[in-house]
Amino acid sequence: MNPDTKLHAARRDRLRAVLRREGLSALLVSQSANRYYLSGFALHNPQENESAGMLLVTTGGVDLLFTDSRYRDEALRLWPEAGLRIYRGNTPPSTIGESVSSLGAGVLGLEARGISLDFFDQCAASLSALVEIRRTYGLIEELRCIKSPDELERIGAACALNHAMMAWLPSVALPGRSEAAVAWDIEKFFRERGAPETAFAVIVGRGPNAALPHCVPGGDRLQQDDLVLVDAGCRLRDYCSDQTRTLWLGPNPSARFRDTLQAVQEAQRRAVALIRPGIPCCEVFQAAWDYFVQLGVSDAFTHGLGHGIGLETHEGPNLNHANALLLEPGMVVTVEPGLYDPAWGGVRWEHMVVVTEDGNRVL
Amino acid sequence: MNPDTKLHAARRDRLRAVLRREGLSALLVSQSANRYYLSGFALHNPQENESAGMLLVTTGGVDLLFTDSRYRDEALRLWPEAGLRIYRGNTPPSTIGESVSSLGAGVLGLEARGISLDFFDQCAASLSALVEIRRTYGLIEELRCIKSPDELERIGAACALNHAMMAWLPSVALPGRSEAAVAWDIEKFFRERGAPETAFAVIVGRGPNAALPHCVPGGDRLQQDDLVLVDAGCRLRDYCSDQTRTLWLGPNPSARFRDTLQAVQEAQRRAVALIRPGIPCCEVFQAAWDYFVQLGVSDAFTHGLGHGIGLETHEGPNLNHANALLLEPGMVVTVEPGLYDPAWGGVRWEHMVVVTEDGNRVL
Repeated sequence: MNPDTKLHAARRDRLRAVLRREGLSALLVSQSANRYYLSGFALHNPQENESAGMLLVTTGGVDLLFTDSRYRDEALRLWPEAGLRIYRGNTPPSTIGESVSSLGAGVLGLEARGISLDFFDQCAASLSALVEIRRTYGLIEELRCIKSPDELERIGAACALNHAMMAWLPSVALPGRSEAAVAWDIEKFFRERGAPETAFAVIVGRGPNAALPHCVPGGDRLQQDDLVLVDAGCRLRDYCSDQTRTLWLGPNPSARFRDTLQAVQEAQRRAVALIRPGIPCCEVFQAAWDYFVQLGVSDAFTHGLGHGIGLETHEGPNLNHANALLLEPGMVVTVEPGLYDPAWGGVRWEHMVVVTEDGNRVL
Repeated sequence: MNPDTKLHAARRDRLRAVLRREGLSALLVSQSANRYYLSGFALHNPQENESAGMLLVTTGGVDLLFTDSRYRDEALRLWPEAGLRIYRGNTPPSTIGESVSSLGAGVLGLEARGISLDFFDQCAASLSALVEIRRTYGLIEELRCIKSPDELERIGAACALNHAMMAWLPSVALPGRSEAAVAWDIEKFFRERGAPETAFAVIVGRGPNAALPHCVPGGDRLQQDDLVLVDAGCRLRDYCSDQTRTLWLGPNPSARFRDTLQAVQEAQRRAVALIRPGIPCCEVFQAAWDYFVQLGVSDAFTHGLGHGIGLETHEGPNLNHANALLLEPGMVVTVEPGLYDPAWGGVRWEHMVVVTEDGNRVL
């Protein structure tokens, strides 16, 4: 028996309330992190265009897990056999169709952002005579946005391992070493301390490479009296961390580096100071943006301010200029302003922040 | 200038011929490995539900790369600025719409298995007044199936690194060590010899765990006089390898292990012997299946015989019971029969095989 079985069942019950609110009799869960959140089955698909399986959650209380024979025994380690359906090759829609038909579901929701057009077409062909199909958007993501105390503890532990990595980083981020070698050291640091994987591909960018927000670490070597940007996170007990620091190699940072770092950190401080329940996400973004406008450098801030983080590195809520969603206790967001100049380099600084009952806590 | 720029342009020209054959004026390429195959841009998306960008290939010869600001400078390292379009946040369909409209494309193909239902809906809303939208299936995958000499060389190098790993494996697959520790050693072996990543999560399963085709290596320890199944591959210069071996720890394999291994290897030998141009994929599967039926063990063979491999670990052609596609020179497939018993364990053995002009070559 998986220790989290009760937890997953409770989450499915919370989802049932959402389904009733939306007038749905059932939801076919296809997005991998959503599937995992509700069942503990397969956090990752085998590859981008291949599904490990799908979960059907019904308001009637019968929940079914669909997968192929490769995953049968793994699924049985956490799901009762009576609720397991094995499909062959490319036939999931017809297998799902038989189940939906036998359950008599009236309105079936499909995750519009979590299925391919082709899968939808197949479902429409085999299910539309049986049920009304309706698109859904972010119903489970809405639940995932608010972290439970257990989830906050796991995120905190992942972030603590990140802090330990950043404290150790100066011992390996040395002049003469390549970006790729430092990135691999960082990955090994995480992996050898209990993290089964990094939360995303480690970013190490020196000098002008630091201006690429998603720089791929290469053969370029770190230099004395130069900057290096490191953006890295781990997955620990399923939950992700994400932190960026920009270091100066040498005792005397250039005036430009110091000024840029100061601007970025002040923008971050102003944004974090606003974070509390009831504040719209876009206002947090705006606090950093307005400060950069005031300094006349906003053109060099080329991305959003941050994102929610949990089972996925990027999840809701987004801190961008347009998101009117109000912050709530239990949300966890990154706050990561940056200023970039492709001819010079870039500085980014990133904290993870939990929204608390009366304000926030920086992890 | 990226050294593969000409290669990518030649591939897009080959695709143009396919588009004309299909009556399409343009194709929006969204599947990540297809995008990379044709442009060199971003082999991976940042995460499953997030796109790094899309490529528009037109029969008129104008090709455009769409991405967001995070990837702008990276894209400019391999794509001319005149052909680059930057979209903001969730607006790719409208940005793509403006371009399609200005190019006057008549029939626009969308990869039905490479876009979400939601993205399709947005495209339909913003493009259907401008162009006819048509679903496409596997047009680029059809080109990717046949490997060029350069691709074969890269796949051969990835497979050679795998052979080196398997030769070294007995020095770390020792009684008392955990599956997870051995899996991590295998990953480090690849990563420290030039592979930026594994081709898929390394599988190490001892005893009964070997019966899980996609076993996640855990704390279980390898034992003397027991079997261990290792299925691992690396990515080297973009191309994947994939090999499985099942080892016995100790000088005296049990009779059951020896018999099962012999059955699996004989099934593999019969299947490989059939591989040559003009043979249907399903006949190769059938050769292994028939042999298992003859032995009375076919119920224990629970998956397909193999799959194509290249930029992705799993790509076309599939060697299963239903695929009537004829093998052609330049195809590369895995041949990996296995026999499993959840109460005992499992044995799988896997080769990578290139279809040559007059037969095949085992890598």
